[in-house]
Amino acid sequence: MPRRIRITLAWDGTDYHGWQLQPGLPTIQGVIEEIVAGIESKPVRVEASGRTDAGVHALAQVAAFTLENPIPFDNLRRAMNRLLPASVRVLRVDEAHAEFHPRFDAVAKTYRYTIFRDEVCPPLEWRYVYHHPYPLDEGAMAVAARVYEGDHDFTAFAAADHRSSGQKDSETEGEPRTKVRTIFSSVVERRGNKLIYTVRGSGFLKHMVRNIVGTLLEAGRGNIRADVFPAKAGRTAPAKGLTMVSVEYADAHFGSDVSL
Amino acid sequence: MPRRIRITLAWDGTDYHGWQLQPGLPTIQGVIEEIVAGIESKPVRVEASGRTDAGVHALAQVAAFTLENPIPFDNLRRAMNRLLPASVRVLRVDEAHAEFHPRFDAVAKTYRYTIFRDEVCPPLEWRYVYHHPYPLDEGAMAVAARVYEGDHDFTAFAAADHRSSGQKDSETEGEPRTKVRTIFSSVVERRGNKLIYTVRGSGFLKHMVRNIVGTLLEAGRGNIRADVFPAKAGRTAPAKGLTMVSVEYADAHFGSDVSL
Repeated sequence: MPRRIRITLAWDGTDYHGWQLQPGLPTIQGVIEEIVAGIESKPVRVEASGRTDAGVHALAQVAAFTLENPIPFDNLRRAMNRLLPASVRVLRVDEAHAEFHPRFDAVAKTYRYTIFRDEVCPPLEWRYVYHHPYPLDEGAMAVAARVYEGDHDFTAFAAADHRSSGQKDSETEGEPRTKVRTIFSSVVERRGNKLIYTVRGSGFLKHMVRNIVGTLLEAGRGNIRADVFPAKAGRTAPAKGLTMVSVEYADAHFGSDVSL
Repeated sequence: MPRRIRITLAWDGTDYHGWQLQPGLPTIQGVIEEIVAGIESKPVRVEASGRTDAGVHALAQVAAFTLENPIPFDNLRRAMNRLLPASVRVLRVDEAHAEFHPRFDAVAKTYRYTIFRDEVCPPLEWRYVYHHPYPLDEGAMAVAARVYEGDHDFTAFAAADHRSSGQKDSETEGEPRTKVRTIFSSVVERRGNKLIYTVRGSGFLKHMVRNIVGTLLEAGRGNIRADVFPAKAGRTAPAKGLTMVSVEYADAHFGSDVSL
């Protein structure tokens, strides 16, 4: 009897072209599918809760696949971690119900974007932050962040190739083509020499978090009003500052605990 | 009038063959000397407080050179950081007295070695820790660490090619060939999922800290007594777990504050 298996992954996105399989390029889906195929002795499709961009990191991403091989979960986790590069880790393996779909069943996802504010960015951190030591009104950015909470049409915050309503995007494939998303919380806060944006929502369009960050930076520069929902997005913020933090399902929460 | 300039550096050692210049290989001294030569328009020798091994990281290493170019310190720091790769940073630039020598004048150095103890090593940390999830008597290691405090002959803890007293080593060049070093503090402590060894001493022989860690691991495995100074060293621990934390001079302390 094949089992539906849910895995929680973490990775350093520096050297990967994002989640999605791309011929000839290193992707997270590519390395995971290759290893699972080796265990199952035939190709296996591995789906994730969403398609993260090239360079984005993950403290927790949820993926799923169906396996006939009866390997115990502990052995599967150890075997995968032995075969994966150190930059990708399987944190957890558990059984899901037969119909589990990591994208359609997700009820919330949380992302974190880190801006490093001091002049000199530490060598052990530069891969995981956007270094922006220039003046910013961080109070205005904190106000601006709250504007996204609630239900909003995020068309202006989708990647250019995903704005037309006739096209599929990374979240709504097979669903109505709405660009409305619900943001449960959207918070900017200072922690030491970092300015951290944490956003938890029902789902996100392609580039949406990085475009929100680019727009928060415009508010921080005083170029746009902080207290109204912006009509257009600022420049897409660099991928390396973005980290996927957790994915939530009706029955379970996968990810790092991040204070919001 | 040429100035004697002291710089404090931090780096991610992953992609470097240590401090010392080696033809055709990326080294920290190599990238720094190349940039300083560009600023001075002629070759400049840059000396550090010691020669760190390939793969070792630095939160703070002190180096010095003599410059005729009257560039202000702030500009020098900014120019160097603009030209250096993101994995090497100049944290600080200041003027030293004309005779300042970063190695001979150092009165203490502090190193930290990090052992990651949980089964799955996070992708954002693997470059900076030695992953060792196997059983260890950490209490015995804490006892064993204290044995190194005080004055000891560390001949057995020097790299094999530096053990004979007729050969120079990285610390004593131009000085008496003693292998006696003074260790001010030597402490093992658990912090979350990490076991951290912090050692502060007058100076260190080549591979000495990594050989002490290898010996502490033998005490942790119960293979040697924890409460006596060992007659021979255990296997050299991997470089990537080692980080240079600070260098102290009679007049100043350079580095991160690390609780001992």
